Amino acid sequence: MMPSTFPPDSVGLVSPQVAHFAEPLALDCGRSLADYQLVYETYGTLNSASSNAVLICHALSGDHHVAGYYQESGSDKPGWWDNCIGPGKPLDTRHFFVVCCNNLGGCKGSTGPTSINPDTRKPYGPDFPIVTVKDWVHSQARLADRLGIRQWAAVIGGSLGGMQAMQWAITFPERLRHALVIAAAPRLSAQNIAFNEVARQAILTDPDFHHGHYYEFGVVPRRGLMIARMLGHITYLSDEGMRTKFGREMREGTPNFHFNFDSEFQVESYLRHQGRAFVDRFDANTYLLITKTLDYFDPAADFAEDLSAAFAQTQARFLVVSFTTDWRFAPARSREIVRALVRAGRETSYAEVPSEHGHDTFLMPIPLYHDILRGYLARIAQETGDAA
Amino acid sequence: MMPSTFPPDSVGLVSPQVAHFAEPLALDCGRSLADYQLVYETYGTLNSASSNAVLICHALSGDHHVAGYYQESGSDKPGWWDNCIGPGKPLDTRHFFVVCCNNLGGCKGSTGPTSINPDTRKPYGPDFPIVTVKDWVHSQARLADRLGIRQWAAVIGGSLGGMQAMQWAITFPERLRHALVIAAAPRLSAQNIAFNEVARQAILTDPDFHHGHYYEFGVVPRRGLMIARMLGHITYLSDEGMRTKFGREMREGTPNFHFNFDSEFQVESYLRHQGRAFVDRFDANTYLLITKTLDYFDPAADFAEDLSAAFAQTQARFLVVSFTTDWRFAPARSREIVRALVRAGRETSYAEVPSEHGHDTFLMPIPLYHDILRGYLARIAQETGDAA
Repeated sequence: MMPSTFPPDSVGLVSPQVAHFAEPLALDCGRSLADYQLVYETYGTLNSASSNAVLICHALSGDHHVAGYYQESGSDKPGWWDNCIGPGKPLDTRHFFVVCCNNLGGCKGSTGPTSINPDTRKPYGPDFPIVTVKDWVHSQARLADRLGIRQWAAVIGGSLGGMQAMQWAITFPERLRHALVIAAAPRLSAQNIAFNEVARQAILTDPDFHHGHYYEFGVVPRRGLMIARMLGHITYLSDEGMRTKFGREMREGTPNFHFNFDSEFQVESYLRHQGRAFVDRFDANTYLLITKTLDYFDPAADFAEDLSAAFAQTQARFLVVSFTTDWRFAPARSREIVRALVRAGRETSYAEVPSEHGHDTFLMPIPLYHDILRGYLARIAQETGDAA
Repeated sequence: MMPSTFPPDSVGLVSPQVAHFAEPLALDCGRSLADYQLVYETYGTLNSASSNAVLICHALSGDHHVAGYYQESGSDKPGWWDNCIGPGKPLDTRHFFVVCCNNLGGCKGSTGPTSINPDTRKPYGPDFPIVTVKDWVHSQARLADRLGIRQWAAVIGGSLGGMQAMQWAITFPERLRHALVIAAAPRLSAQNIAFNEVARQAILTDPDFHHGHYYEFGVVPRRGLMIARMLGHITYLSDEGMRTKFGREMREGTPNFHFNFDSEFQVESYLRHQGRAFVDRFDANTYLLITKTLDYFDPAADFAEDLSAAFAQTQARFLVVSFTTDWRFAPARSREIVRALVRAGRETSYAEVPSEHGHDTFLMPIPLYHDILRGYLARIAQETGDAA
């Protein structure tokens, strides 16, 4: 590591590690994975009591590269939550040992649709089983075992990551002391499912999809995945945020009135760029799979639709955070979670943070948001007895 | 007409008429249409003073078939706003002479991309000029001339139709006494444009689009148009309405966990059905064109972005109606219109109608909504001096 090339509050140079698991993992769908691997990163140092470990759970398009840089020059982009994790940052790596793995079914190194199916010697593609949030939590628990972590100081996640944090508290009540559930929902609404369905149809109807076997044809369903990502982005931003960022600004100032549909408004260029860039870094089968993981998530379903009953067995303390202009998982959805937790007698903190940036705020260094995380995590560090 | 086969408050059997226009129409884009036709329907009887005519302006996927039936049996579906128009209905055809034309650029009989371009003897396709709301209003004014209507008692429209009603008041102040602007907006927001852009990209990237010349290839961009329509439907419904209508109900009761992505949730089946049905009745080039018409609409742009200045020259009285759960053109957008009208000294009535059905409410026979239309239109009928 060459500290001089990184900001002083960066975790610096990082590299992914791989954990192989040979014992079969039984999945919610009834199938099991005989053999799989998880790619993960860690930052900070696990203390002697193994009591300072924090699990970060990533969202739909996230991965295990949460903080730090892959190149000594620091010229590449840092991990997706670098603004929050490092020495002196809200999740302070001087106190915490931070772990994040690419989820099963992902496309960044953990076993997923792009991996070779040992039975066929070809990529799994659509033969990869649909995995659920519960499955992820079980696979993450095995990673914890491997790392010698019996109990997490905290499990933290935004969006789909927050759903994993909730599921951890329900499935393994004794294995975490805190759950930080950010910009999440107790389950998808019909509208959320509808957006996922349009994204799926865009991919499924792309002639380059080949029923999910596109790897064998040397193509990827670029068009469909691009549409899916553009649509996703609309739901990640707020109407207000878009107004501030793009307004109705035209790139050329005036309409071109052409039927070629070159992008004219700034917001069009932005979405096209986002869509195209995504195709180069993400797998369409993984995208399909994870939209289903989202649709299926419904912890109350096992408890006669009583979310409070689902939380009754939890032991963690909770921090729930929402953002005022988030309309993908609106504050009202977080308040549902909070009501159910309080009714279940859980110790629950709730913060609704003003922001014009919509759902994406959970990734942004908004001062009030980061102060809230800093304050809550400092208390955990103190409890953990590892404050510097 | 066989009255016995139709409900007593139906306009009954109707048939479209065609008006040819040989004088060139200069368009906003700088081009002109040398020759064009408009297909239209009328219900009721024009009085001797020609003072009881009402123009209905249709929205994105609407057309001239607003009320009544095409078959004597009444077995086909009635026009798209049949619940509002007929003897004894809010827009009472015993008092009013109702006119609606398919807009220029449409695909239901008026000249548009599917029409034969006289210069090439092939369908216009992407060579059809982009038309604006102003262009529509000019073409509708010529239809009014043809029908001997110097001044409309009212111009009425929902959504994009409401934008036409506003534009009528601005462009031809003396040619309408009332403008009824329902579930509209003074212009699209960045988010509105973003949704249009995703719909366009879905169509443009469909391999069957052939740069808009798909007619010549004997195909249509089914996949793209289906995605566009599914996406549109999400914005026409509200989250609340979807919750009531679909919830998270699964067709089979439990997840199938299959990578085939058969529709499982009710909302998925609904959207797929809507998408597929649309492809059979609508042209993709028209869809592209009208999304641009929407994006470009901005009456304040000619008045240094001062909407009130745009309304200063109007003479019509206004009724503006919005629906509480409409998030495509939210009540706040209607209140912008109302503020600008009141500031411009216009006589303006505003009603915000509670409804869980979102944008689509403008098509529904919600009692309070219809009572408001009935009350307002009854006053117009009285003024017109043709009350029965």
